[in-house]
Amino acid sequence: MPQPNKPIRSDIAWSTVDTISIRGLSLPDEILGNYNLGDFSFLQLTGRPPTPQQSRMFNAIIVALVEHGLTPSALAARITYAGAPESLQAAVAAGISGLGTVFVGTMEGATRLLYQALPLDAPDPDDFETLACDVVTRFRTDKKLVPGLGHAIHKNGDPRTPRLFQIAEEADMAGRYVKLIKAVQVEAEKSYGKKLPLNATGAIGAICCEFGFPEQVIRGFGVMARAIGLVGHIMEEVEKPLALEVVRRAEEEASRHLRKPGE
Amino acid sequence: MPQPNKPIRSDIAWSTVDTISIRGLSLPDEILGNYNLGDFSFLQLTGRPPTPQQSRMFNAIIVALVEHGLTPSALAARITYAGAPESLQAAVAAGISGLGTVFVGTMEGATRLLYQALPLDAPDPDDFETLACDVVTRFRTDKKLVPGLGHAIHKNGDPRTPRLFQIAEEADMAGRYVKLIKAVQVEAEKSYGKKLPLNATGAIGAICCEFGFPEQVIRGFGVMARAIGLVGHIMEEVEKPLALEVVRRAEEEASRHLRKPGE
Amino acid sequence: MPQPNKPIRSDIAWSTVDTISIRGLSLPDEILGNYNLGDFSFLQLTGRPPTPQQSRMFNAIIVALVEHGLTPSALAARITYAGAPESLQAAVAAGISGLGTVFVGTMEGATRLLYQALPLDAPDPDDFETLACDVVTRFRTDKKLVPGLGHAIHKNGDPRTPRLFQIAEEADMAGRYVKLIKAVQVEAEKSYGKKLPLNATGAIGAICCEFGFPEQVIRGFGVMARAIGLVGHIMEEVEKPLALEVVRRAEEEASRHLRKPGE
Amino acid sequence: MPQPNKPIRSDIAWSTVDTISIRGLSLPDEILGNYNLGDFSFLQLTGRPPTPQQSRMFNAIIVALVEHGLTPSALAARITYAGAPESLQAAVAAGISGLGTVFVGTMEGATRLLYQALPLDAPDPDDFETLACDVVTRFRTDKKLVPGLGHAIHKNGDPRTPRLFQIAEEADMAGRYVKLIKAVQVEAEKSYGKKLPLNATGAIGAICCEFGFPEQVIRGFGVMARAIGLVGHIMEEVEKPLALEVVRRAEEEASRHLRKPGE
Repeated sequence: MPQPNKPIRSDIAWSTVDTISIRGLSLPDEILGNYNLGDFSFLQLTGRPPTPQQSRMFNAIIVALVEHGLTPSALAARITYAGAPESLQAAVAAGISGLGTVFVGTMEGATRLLYQALPLDAPDPDDFETLACDVVTRFRTDKKLVPGLGHAIHKNGDPRTPRLFQIAEEADMAGRYVKLIKAVQVEAEKSYGKKLPLNATGAIGAICCEFGFPEQVIRGFGVMARAIGLVGHIMEEVEKPLALEVVRRAEEEASRHLRKPGE
Repeated sequence: MPQPNKPIRSDIAWSTVDTISIRGLSLPDEILGNYNLGDFSFLQLTGRPPTPQQSRMFNAIIVALVEHGLTPSALAARITYAGAPESLQAAVAAGISGLGTVFVGTMEGATRLLYQALPLDAPDPDDFETLACDVVTRFRTDKKLVPGLGHAIHKNGDPRTPRLFQIAEEADMAGRYVKLIKAVQVEAEKSYGKKLPLNATGAIGAICCEFGFPEQVIRGFGVMARAIGLVGHIMEEVEKPLALEVVRRAEEEASRHLRKPGE
Repeated sequence: MPQPNKPIRSDIAWSTVDTISIRGLSLPDEILGNYNLGDFSFLQLTGRPPTPQQSRMFNAIIVALVEHGLTPSALAARITYAGAPESLQAAVAAGISGLGTVFVGTMEGATRLLYQALPLDAPDPDDFETLACDVVTRFRTDKKLVPGLGHAIHKNGDPRTPRLFQIAEEADMAGRYVKLIKAVQVEAEKSYGKKLPLNATGAIGAICCEFGFPEQVIRGFGVMARAIGLVGHIMEEVEKPLALEVVRRAEEEASRHLRKPGE
Repeated sequence: MPQPNKPIRSDIAWSTVDTISIRGLSLPDEILGNYNLGDFSFLQLTGRPPTPQQSRMFNAIIVALVEHGLTPSALAARITYAGAPESLQAAVAAGISGLGTVFVGTMEGATRLLYQALPLDAPDPDDFETLACDVVTRFRTDKKLVPGLGHAIHKNGDPRTPRLFQIAEEADMAGRYVKLIKAVQVEAEKSYGKKLPLNATGAIGAICCEFGFPEQVIRGFGVMARAIGLVGHIMEEVEKPLALEVVRRAEEEASRHLRKPGE
């Protein structure tokens, strides 16, 4: 027996013969020409326009996520484009598909850590140091790395972190989550006895908590930002291809031991 | 015998212990807090910062591409998320994968039409009407639709088109390609003897020619903009799921004729 | 300072001027014409050819995973194809992207359950009932569903299950994991006090344990099998399109409440 | 005004409370245990079971497409897996996304060439040499490469080609399309004055014509076969990872010129 239909409803956008509305605003009359891409992304994802301070902060964190050089996702996109240049969209899709727990996950992890230690509706803690110490102890007990700390290249400190916090200060958004992640960083260095600078994913994770963004959307920020970056890489691949050379070298080295001498 | 290595080189971004540079600018010092997401996208894709006029125009065209309601790509993304909620990135990738010749293609087609009729390095034509007439005749002869004209819903005119052209005027960017696409629209209505309003993809295609963007990057604009829109749809799917109900209804109707009475 | 290179090595396949080897066998001389697709998949994934009994069993479990009607992944693939018919590969990719924890996950879950209760290197338990009872109790305590049990449509029993177990008997592969999953099913019905028939994912999960397949590869079986099914759906979409009609109806119903009367 | 609904119908598979049918056959009673994966793929894609001869030939051509070493798609899949190991399905999807015009396209191109020269419903040509000569001349005039000829590694001849044709002979399927592609190869060598051996994509393209497969499904064969191969590569990546080392080396070399001395 067929089940009764459940209603289907979406409240993001609709069109009539002569109007297009998104999140309740007229796209031609109220959005185009008035919203920059970051502000409109904020509207699309939260349902409300950003304040001027939110606008500057939000644009900064998304911009910080766009481009990181020849990353795994950039290389996967470029390799895919080399095989299917008729489908730029599929190359971006391939690059995005790798933005999972390993790379984008640390940003999510920082947000989760902060919300678990200090839920949105909880009052301020008496003592950020004690709370931070608890957090670090829990991660050490579980034998897990504290997300948002350390960086393979920027060993003396991630240059994005102080800048993002400076913008947060100027936007009046350097609140209790920024304070807490800084305290976590201090406690982690003490506990592990080595340099563990706060990296950009930790800073952005904390700022996302200041916005009150739900944890699930964080990965979405990384994905949408990187989509922009990947289009840039594909454009470079069109002009200065490198993908197939990378594959050729890898293939050759990987199977060299299987060949006979002289081949 | 192994081939000699060819060099591998990318000029987009690099990092050192204490710096991150993108397109020759310092990400922390020169970009963060100063660039909105649209302006930074322009930098990432073209290698140069936009002028204030280019900034307003570019932000407007990308914003216009972000969100179009429950489109095929939005539904594909939501269905994919329903099956793999652990991989938001894969759901965005699935939605992006359908941004091919059928939907995003018309924008590319409008740009191609304009560049073929009037190459970037060609002088202005003596007569836009004659040139437009040639274009329309060629498409009719090839039995192809002129890209950028007509709209299934906005039968009296796409409300985005006049607004985009107004912004182009204000930005001093309503040059010869805008003039040519408008002439093509007039000639097409004459030739086909029916209303064929210029739609947003035609307007954006013309504006992309004003920028001098290469044809291949146009699809990339659609892809990166829609990635933002898709994250919004997935966020809505988390709160108000509809994807599996759409699939259930389709599955039931599609296979109903194969069932025996009473099932 | 650049890191020293780590070696790169793959042992699956290699080519020389006049040979192609896969898993140590000559593709033209030993594989083509001698291996059916299921047997060759077994070789590709395990590195060894199947015995005749393994061949029949393995072909059966992969065949069972190919096609399930107009599933979410079939619809996502068909919608994607409708937007990008030039990229059949991207449509299959989109459909595959949704084969995550929700649908394919239960098969993995059944395998994990069985390996956790009875590791590959553990001796047979004294008593399968007690072990099964422990398993069910643990899932109830964690408030989780026992994977592999129950079916939305096949309420009286999944017709694939007895057939798969019959083939396992004939192939001499109905060993201790098949015994354990059957015991788990009996205990679960007792514990929950309702019909909970063993479904195909539970049966396949148990048979995968009989093979000794690592847990991670199970999802791969579902993915590769479904890729075949999706190509079939896309071929049908070419001849009898339904995807855009499904999207149109969903879009219309989803945004109806946002329109004004008469629209 | 809403459009009237168009009917939605799929004829591939359906389920009732106690049956599952695919292409009109009972999955548990008629398919499982009786069909190997290749034969079932044939049923799924064509709607009819293969004859024994078709079975051997079809299994051979799909098997020939599964695995080609560390190809671009294998590397893209492995890189994607390294970033999102929780989504094996997304890694396979990323790898598949690159199976476009560049690599899988030549097989499609060979089929198209043959069908255009000799449509399925056309009588046999009087003279295969003349027809082949016309084909080669047309490609030379259009300054296009004849698809299916030449190979970067197998310069003296692709070892798969004679084996596939031998199986075709044994299966009584070496008909007029095999004859034509062989004639095209001879004429091309004459015309270009150099060795141009028939490669596996040319042989498979001709055999697909012998089956009468529609041109669009050819890429689907490559996609579904490679999905199996990619799962094998991901399994190897789990045990012997190489993807991130490939990316690291590429990233380092690509951006080396942008660093200052000593970095």
